[in-house]
Amino acid sequence: MTARRVLNPVQRVAIFGGTHGNELSGVFLVNHWLKHGEEIARPGIEVRPFITNPGAVEKCVRYVDTDLNRVFDSENLRNENNLNLSYEVKRAQYINSIFGPKGSEDAYDVILDLHNTTSHMGATLILEDSKDDFTIQMFNYIKTSMAPLACSVLLIEHPRLKYATTRSIAKHPIGVEVGPQPQGVLRADVLDKMRRIIKHALDFINYFNDGKEFLPCILEVFKVLDNVAYPRNANGDCTAIIHNNLQDQDWKELKPGDPMFLTLDGRMIAYEGDCIVYPTFINEAAYYEKNQAFTTTQKMTLCAQAIRCTEPK
Amino acid sequence: MTARRVLNPVQRVAIFGGTHGNELSGVFLVNHWLKHGEEIARPGIEVRPFITNPGAVEKCVRYVDTDLNRVFDSENLRNENNLNLSYEVKRAQYINSIFGPKGSEDAYDVILDLHNTTSHMGATLILEDSKDDFTIQMFNYIKTSMAPLACSVLLIEHPRLKYATTRSIAKHPIGVEVGPQPQGVLRADVLDKMRRIIKHALDFINYFNDGKEFLPCILEVFKVLDNVAYPRNANGDCTAIIHNNLQDQDWKELKPGDPMFLTLDGRMIAYEGDCIVYPTFINEAAYYEKNQAFTTTQKMTLCAQAIRCTEPK
Repeated sequence: MTARRVLNPVQRVAIFGGTHGNELSGVFLVNHWLKHGEEIARPGIEVRPFITNPGAVEKCVRYVDTDLNRVFDSENLRNENNLNLSYEVKRAQYINSIFGPKGSEDAYDVILDLHNTTSHMGATLILEDSKDDFTIQMFNYIKTSMAPLACSVLLIEHPRLKYATTRSIAKHPIGVEVGPQPQGVLRADVLDKMRRIIKHALDFINYFNDGKEFLPCILEVFKVLDNVAYPRNANGDCTAIIHNNLQDQDWKELKPGDPMFLTLDGRMIAYEGDCIVYPTFINEAAYYEKNQAFTTTQKMTLCAQAIRCTEPK
Repeated sequence: MTARRVLNPVQRVAIFGGTHGNELSGVFLVNHWLKHGEEIARPGIEVRPFITNPGAVEKCVRYVDTDLNRVFDSENLRNENNLNLSYEVKRAQYINSIFGPKGSEDAYDVILDLHNTTSHMGATLILEDSKDDFTIQMFNYIKTSMAPLACSVLLIEHPRLKYATTRSIAKHPIGVEVGPQPQGVLRADVLDKMRRIIKHALDFINYFNDGKEFLPCILEVFKVLDNVAYPRNANGDCTAIIHNNLQDQDWKELKPGDPMFLTLDGRMIAYEGDCIVYPTFINEAAYYEKNQAFTTTQKMTLCAQAIRCTEPK
């Protein structure tokens, strides 16, 4: 008999929109659900829609002072120097007081944080912990339910790159990233994909709480390797843009020698790595200021144990 | 023998980038040409690349205080109340002092103003005056040179909608609008189209100055009819988004009864006009704040007389 993890039922779920104020699918859906909650209601579970960065939503910008999705580290969450805190750090502390505290037993069980990207990533789920069997099982369920539509999983576990995301205060933090969609735009096709992901996530939780056992599963994920910077000259000016052959090719293999950038005088700059990688977040608008042209990933397969709830209702 | 217009040679041409600071193709090209002018040089013509809204470019936003591309009316250009002027109105006066004055003999002959849109408009040329034979001839030349790639012409002459564009200070104002491209993003395909339009425009001017006669021509244009607003509830909240069937269908016919919007509860809102129209600027990010979901146009054909230069070099 295989190992089986017996887990507590899920009691509290939050759905975050507007962590980046110009990523409109989540803002629009969360505002809708705040008025019409029946779509996300599931028996015996508190499901709470919440706008995390109302200041940024109001201005339709990514953030007011700093990226809310990078400040949920212990230093910021504990900082009591109230006079000098940025809008987003104050907001992070407030969010942590409601849905956390991060790392504690009181934290929400699940946070689904809704994002858009200008990259052609399609429907994407973001996993923070490769040992989180519950979330891997959920992602497997969502992927299966979304088929034949592709639904990719990005694993952001990394020895050096730390994200300190808004959702990271939950026991099971889940990023939902759907693109391509320009900042400040609502596309019906993107909205529909995001909405279906949330439906399947909540259905999974409902089945789990009801006592359904989820058998051991495997999940193909793309694990973050590194960020690739734009070429710049001595003045710091960007000297090349994403090559046509790479544009819109998120999740497709990039081989050493493949075109990566194009300079304005027509010179191609090739990828010079020593192995095949799978780029993602290619040409994401918000990452120009971080000087990230794209993120490389490697494909790997995670295995999750069977899971079951302790106390079927 | 047909009529022929004999016109003065073109002496001064400006290429504007960054009128909207987050429309990056023009910003990137103009900054490139400021350092490497040989690509846009033509004998006997001053061709001046210029960043019109450096404050907005610096912040990668559409504008700092107000839309620079709507303030070139006589009231703003003459306003001397320096203390209370917005950044963009001050900038408009400065631009007018260099490239204008608007409506005077001293104004630049041609201004090519470079824009991007999140709409699927492809390569688009914007015409302000249906009687401007020189510009119609240029657009005909550009369209022919771009083929088989589509290059649409939008005519913004309208009894009620007035634009007061940045380029309107020139004798021949030319808008260049290429999409789809998200705000804050540079796409190689979009950059290439814009660059080819500028090459063909400058080649046309060069041929014209050299004494080449351009024979009478006809030009298919899409003339602005009206702007269509998003449906809103009593609180002013947007209640529907662009329908999937209309999204990305710029320049395609929209018939009475065709789907136009979709509400979050799945209801379709149909187009209820009384004739076929050709929508454009569908789901443009910058027009949410103007509450414009798209612009309707009608197809028409303009005729231009033959043109020739007075003094062939």
